[in-house]
Amino acid sequence: MPLPICYLNGEYLPLSQATVSPLDRAFLFGDAVYEVVPIYSGRPFRFREHFDRLVRSLAAIRMAPALPHGEWATVCRELLARNDAASLDLYIYVQVTRGAEFGRNHAWPEGLIPTLFAYLSALEPVSAQMLQNGVAAITSADIRWARRDIKSTALLANVLLKKLATDASAFETILLEDGLLTEGSSTTVHIVTNGTVRTPPNSHRILPGTTRDVVTELAARLGIPNEVGNVTERQLRAAQEIWLSFSTRGVLPVTHLDGVAVGAGTPGAAFRRLHAAFAAFRLELAGAPWL
Amino acid sequence: MPLPICYLNGEYLPLSQATVSPLDRAFLFGDAVYEVVPIYSGRPFRFREHFDRLVRSLAAIRMAPALPHGEWATVCRELLARNDAASLDLYIYVQVTRGAEFGRNHAWPEGLIPTLFAYLSALEPVSAQMLQNGVAAITSADIRWARRDIKSTALLANVLLKKLATDASAFETILLEDGLLTEGSSTTVHIVTNGTVRTPPNSHRILPGTTRDVVTELAARLGIPNEVGNVTERQLRAAQEIWLSFSTRGVLPVTHLDGVAVGAGTPGAAFRRLHAAFAAFRLELAGAPWL
Repeated sequence: MPLPICYLNGEYLPLSQATVSPLDRAFLFGDAVYEVVPIYSGRPFRFREHFDRLVRSLAAIRMAPALPHGEWATVCRELLARNDAASLDLYIYVQVTRGAEFGRNHAWPEGLIPTLFAYLSALEPVSAQMLQNGVAAITSADIRWARRDIKSTALLANVLLKKLATDASAFETILLEDGLLTEGSSTTVHIVTNGTVRTPPNSHRILPGTTRDVVTELAARLGIPNEVGNVTERQLRAAQEIWLSFSTRGVLPVTHLDGVAVGAGTPGAAFRRLHAAFAAFRLELAGAPWL
Repeated sequence: MPLPICYLNGEYLPLSQATVSPLDRAFLFGDAVYEVVPIYSGRPFRFREHFDRLVRSLAAIRMAPALPHGEWATVCRELLARNDAASLDLYIYVQVTRGAEFGRNHAWPEGLIPTLFAYLSALEPVSAQMLQNGVAAITSADIRWARRDIKSTALLANVLLKKLATDASAFETILLEDGLLTEGSSTTVHIVTNGTVRTPPNSHRILPGTTRDVVTELAARLGIPNEVGNVTERQLRAAQEIWLSFSTRGVLPVTHLDGVAVGAGTPGAAFRRLHAAFAAFRLELAGAPWL
């Protein structure tokens, strides 16, 4: 649930009263990029990496960095203070749009003023049941565009794909393209085969996951072999474990895929180790710098 | 240029004062569909067909028809009256979003109230120079999603593709996929080979064009053979003529593709006949019913 005070174009105001023009290019064209950054009790989770990615997304759609990282950190700290939220587990949502023009042209004119929007939202804790039983996922063809490395708000494909999962009482839709795993509709997917974790390589086909990188680092610490490489549909379906990683929940085990048990149909041994390491890693964030 | 009074959620108000929530799903997710319908001196151009397509787009993203066609016609007539615009050539832009929720979840909850937005904008007349010289186009890989039959506002790919054209001082970017023509970044593409017009078949790969249908009908009237079928990149580059059709300009000749002359590098004979028929067709609209 969002907290009441948001940030919009340099001002702090009630989210319920925040407004933008319907001529904003985010509204008319999906011409905007965003980030979602967890903040655990005031401790940022890979703040710099998320804002580095924001700058890369902006560059890919040919926009300048909207604010220096330090100013985003100030926005975030102000939002924590104004919402009295420094002790909560939450995330900051940040969106930069190309701005509004009085008219509508696919090719944007020069000189638009970007719209900057940010708000805090409580992080739903991962339930004990979810960790004990894992979650269900379904598969679908990946119908998204060819530049999924850009974290854009033109998310209608993701929206429709995620809805397929909830229709099927599943948590996520895992996407396949040309016989290969890409990612989930809003998550990175990892598989475990014979004790080795495997994740598709970063490319235009998937978003380079910040939480994915943490999973990779933690696997290395634990001595769990971790490979980056293509994952075929067959490898996905034969995996002993399937994990989802994403900013708002960390890492979750998929225990049923298209109604079929993954491994024993319960969270696997490697997942349990990784998850424990992830929980410890969060505690380490206490001293983490914002930047 | 947009006219001053717009329609937003049942009200008529100055476009400069119209606002929506940044929590609207069009703003956060590109979760919205739209139409652009020409109105020539108060005479609607295929009004029913455009709103039929709006209903199909809505159904494809699992939304109910927002308003009956008759109520959209009322909105349009009100906008014409309130903007004193009955004698102008213009278009109505109509957008329906899934609505705003206090939060952010890819899978939408039930019970959202759609946001309805419409405004009028003057149609720029096609310049004599454009008709005499034709326009330039470039080609690019089609990087869009797999459901281009849905006229959604998640248009970032189209935006970036159109910008490639303007970077190259061209009018349009013509898109290729798997060695086949799909369409332009905001237009339908027709080619003429040995006197026969050819257009790719409707499918999930392209938007079913309302102006395209008019071109087909007019070609039939003129006795110009018209085929629907795949167009290979080779056929595109070897065509004697290339036409673009789209609501806001009707039909335009492409006379240079990637810097190479199309045919003689001037608008072709078939184009000139079709364009004259199109101009006459517009005059026939005087008695056209809205629905």
